[in-house]
Amino acid sequence: MSVENVVYIGSKPVMNYCLAVLTSLKDEGSRVTLKARGRAISTAVDVAEVTRRRFMENLTVENIEIGTEELESLEGRMRNVSTMTIVLKK
Amino acid sequence: MSVENVVYIGSKPVMNYCLAVLTSLKDEGSRVTLKARGRAISTAVDVAEVTRRRFMENLTVENIEIGTEELESLEGRMRNVSTMTIVLKK
Repeated sequence: MSVENVVYIGSKPVMNYCLAVLTSLKDEGSRVTLKARGRAISTAVDVAEVTRRRFMENLTVENIEIGTEELESLEGRMRNVSTMTIVLKK
Repeated sequence: MSVENVVYIGSKPVMNYCLAVLTSLKDEGSRVTLKARGRAISTAVDVAEVTRRRFMENLTVENIEIGTEELESLEGRMRNVSTMTIVLKK
């Protein structure tokens, strides 16, 4: 197994995450995992698509998973938030 | 092949789309496809997750695909928008 290669997607501009993906995919056959929650899920899809179409045409989407996480809000109540994981392979 | 069973995800509340998914999955083995673009992609994941966890525990995610569509803006310029398709199976 190789060292885990994960980019956490938040509310920064898409290009910031594209750069992180590009720098972490050095060797042929290497993988990077995008992880996002809630509203950042659509940004994660943008990052995968922009990287693949504009910067690295040999990049493939190896796997996509969705799920749910329980988060505690500031008032102490539990709420569910959707999650997404996209594995990209060079 | 069966008749196409598609729910287009927009900016309505998540529960509206959950109801559409539930009513379109009548028979065991039936499928429904969620289609979303741009910011609605995170809503599509919410719809899949809420339906599966709260209303229909035997629902499985059969396939997830991401892509890009070219749209013409009001000013006539082309811009790219990310898309997502989620296939759910009862």
